[in-house]
Amino acid sequence: MSATLRIGVAGLGTVGASLLQLLDQHGTTIAARAGRTLTVTAVSARDRNRDRGIDLSGMTWVDDPCDLATMNDVDVVVELMGGADGAARELVSRALANGRPVVTANKALLAEHGNELADLADLNGAALGYEAAVAGGIPIIKALKEGLAGNDVQRVYGILNGTCNFILTEMRSTGRHFADVLAEAQALGYAEADPTFDVEGIDAAHKLALLSAIAFGRRVDFSRVTVEGISGISPVDIAYADEFGFSLKLLGIAERNGDSITERVHPFLVAMDDPIAKVDGVNNAVIVEGDFVGQVVLEGPGAGGGATASAVAGDLVDIAAGRTSPVFGIPAKHLSSEPAGRASETHGRFYIRLKVEDRPGVIADLAAVLRDNAISIESLLQRGAPEGGTAPIVLICHDAPESRVLAALKQIEGLDCILQNPHMIRIKDL
Amino acid sequence: MSATLRIGVAGLGTVGASLLQLLDQHGTTIAARAGRTLTVTAVSARDRNRDRGIDLSGMTWVDDPCDLATMNDVDVVVELMGGADGAARELVSRALANGRPVVTANKALLAEHGNELADLADLNGAALGYEAAVAGGIPIIKALKEGLAGNDVQRVYGILNGTCNFILTEMRSTGRHFADVLAEAQALGYAEADPTFDVEGIDAAHKLALLSAIAFGRRVDFSRVTVEGISGISPVDIAYADEFGFSLKLLGIAERNGDSITERVHPFLVAMDDPIAKVDGVNNAVIVEGDFVGQVVLEGPGAGGGATASAVAGDLVDIAAGRTSPVFGIPAKHLSSEPAGRASETHGRFYIRLKVEDRPGVIADLAAVLRDNAISIESLLQRGAPEGGTAPIVLICHDAPESRVLAALKQIEGLDCILQNPHMIRIKDL
Repeated sequence: MSATLRIGVAGLGTVGASLLQLLDQHGTTIAARAGRTLTVTAVSARDRNRDRGIDLSGMTWVDDPCDLATMNDVDVVVELMGGADGAARELVSRALANGRPVVTANKALLAEHGNELADLADLNGAALGYEAAVAGGIPIIKALKEGLAGNDVQRVYGILNGTCNFILTEMRSTGRHFADVLAEAQALGYAEADPTFDVEGIDAAHKLALLSAIAFGRRVDFSRVTVEGISGISPVDIAYADEFGFSLKLLGIAERNGDSITERVHPFLVAMDDPIAKVDGVNNAVIVEGDFVGQVVLEGPGAGGGATASAVAGDLVDIAAGRTSPVFGIPAKHLSSEPAGRASETHGRFYIRLKVEDRPGVIADLAAVLRDNAISIESLLQRGAPEGGTAPIVLICHDAPESRVLAALKQIEGLDCILQNPHMIRIKDL
Repeated sequence: MSATLRIGVAGLGTVGASLLQLLDQHGTTIAARAGRTLTVTAVSARDRNRDRGIDLSGMTWVDDPCDLATMNDVDVVVELMGGADGAARELVSRALANGRPVVTANKALLAEHGNELADLADLNGAALGYEAAVAGGIPIIKALKEGLAGNDVQRVYGILNGTCNFILTEMRSTGRHFADVLAEAQALGYAEADPTFDVEGIDAAHKLALLSAIAFGRRVDFSRVTVEGISGISPVDIAYADEFGFSLKLLGIAERNGDSITERVHPFLVAMDDPIAKVDGVNNAVIVEGDFVGQVVLEGPGAGGGATASAVAGDLVDIAAGRTSPVFGIPAKHLSSEPAGRASETHGRFYIRLKVEDRPGVIADLAAVLRDNAISIESLLQRGAPEGGTAPIVLICHDAPESRVLAALKQIEGLDCILQNPHMIRIKDL
């Protein structure tokens, strides 16, 4: 590397433009912090002629982003194109294979191909920074890999998707339906045109898989993350949650569960006095529980050009200063490859909402199924229905293994009195 | 350095014992994260014969801790003795002068002599880690120096002293007096026998001076931090605060204020819906506001053996892995030496409680003083007093320069109707 760290940036969307702005505005302080100057020497994006409000003069325009992996005058590659495969994967792999460090904000790429990339990074002695891939501007990757390195982590969890948190916050404060609020989020730029990755929990699961790999020293295994999103959440559940003293949040939770690690993303009911219940809007929050440190909470903006650029810049400063660590905290060859346990092996309390016929014996039938599965009822709420109508029943059951609750729900679905499949939501009792 | 990082520990109190336990329990994972083994080869403490519940066999016992600075078989010194001067200062200075890296939890030492030590560290190419000195187990030093390095920080503030936060939390929940709760905190081990440093805000000011140095690239100047503690807080103020919708917290705030930086520690009234209002007990929380990242909050245990040992271990792993940064984020010779501005140059809203004679004209006199100082009243609360008795008046004034409010209070003290010096508490309106 030369005295100046020469950066090639692939992707000039919101984040790429913010990064160029950041490096331009804070060049002097960044040089002081990094011990050398950081300069963008080459850029690549889809449309050369788009006005991004940033000055690209002095930078080489590259049509094929993959050229950044090998061209001269580039010491480090910043990948901001996105996508688990295609050009992003090609560029990152080629750069690492060439011994060139990479910084990326691409969680899908890391969650899907992180092991292969970590192997490449180790083999070629090239750093791969991805602070920006998890929880936006919150420096959680660094905290887990370095700051909390003295701990045996029991659990890492949090609100990992700002789009879902925005939608749930809005649904709660306005009583509106999911589809309605999603449309608003799209109009505000908080949700993509195709919101599937966000609202179905996939984006949160990508991030969780990365956090879990670092926290527990494991190879990333996205396929073992249990994933459920928020598209099935209805305003009535949010209202009942409120009544029972809970706030509804989409959480990603990776934890030690006996001998294995479980990784799951689900909507959870969170007690109102839990600090995470107050994390509203597009904010993210990550909680790390370590055996020596106790519980540490990091909260901040989970997305947005500025916050993401801040995370990318942090990685670049580290690379410039020679402060690097293995991709998942320890050399890839030492990562455990034991598969994660199944979420059904976890346990907790559960909220169950049922739509039943309003006739004698219904509660008795339900209660019998729960009893037969050794599930105990903590609260039950039934409001009157019009004569001969349908009655909503909401119940919360005491701590029970998830597998037993799922089995009971299956049996309940088969009861005559059930008019609609039960809605079940997990309760966060960590 | 040898392949193994050999550690000399000075001070075997709660933190020292926890550190030895941590390094022993997590030796394998720490070696994986650091890329080499960490071993404690030498220890020093006041009393060799005390039973600390830890196995010291295989470690050299050193009577004079300063010997750790130069003796063989030690690569890095951990200073856990405390105190701004004396043996701690001597040991740290000598180790750095000898090019030997140091990790310390000593905020007083850093706040009082940090510039001199940073110069020494730079001159001799030795790292000086002090993650444990600020906010216990929360990795805030790393976050500020490295993770958020791409930002121009506007403000860094928070709850920096767990003892005070515990006392204020207890006072609020029980209505008891300061002295009473302090005695309980001492019995619980949350407060020292001599609690002055904690309750008078000095410990929080030490930590704030360090955060400010990093955030704003300045030489540490503890003498310019405005410091006020919580010993003057009475239950009546906490009750009024509650009534006005505020929680009372001891905050340290370092911020850009026009051209200068102000650094101040005061009790502040914090709106109930501010996330910091919910940080209770011995927890600490630090908020960083950066121009690109926005607002990031880090919360966790601010003290305790385990949390502090976790922070020390994080620094040791970084040193073992060769991941180091200048003491205050940039080389000491580049730190700005411009003195901090005066807290009186800040502005905000203020809570003022007065004890006045209950007779005609009192409010008129008060209001005239405020008017003459161009201070506008936002709320005023006067409850009836027995005929001819004294009346408490509580008022909140609109945003005003602190200097004007202090001048008005001086004049109010001189009024005939005032029976007791006014109590003023700042309101956090950041």
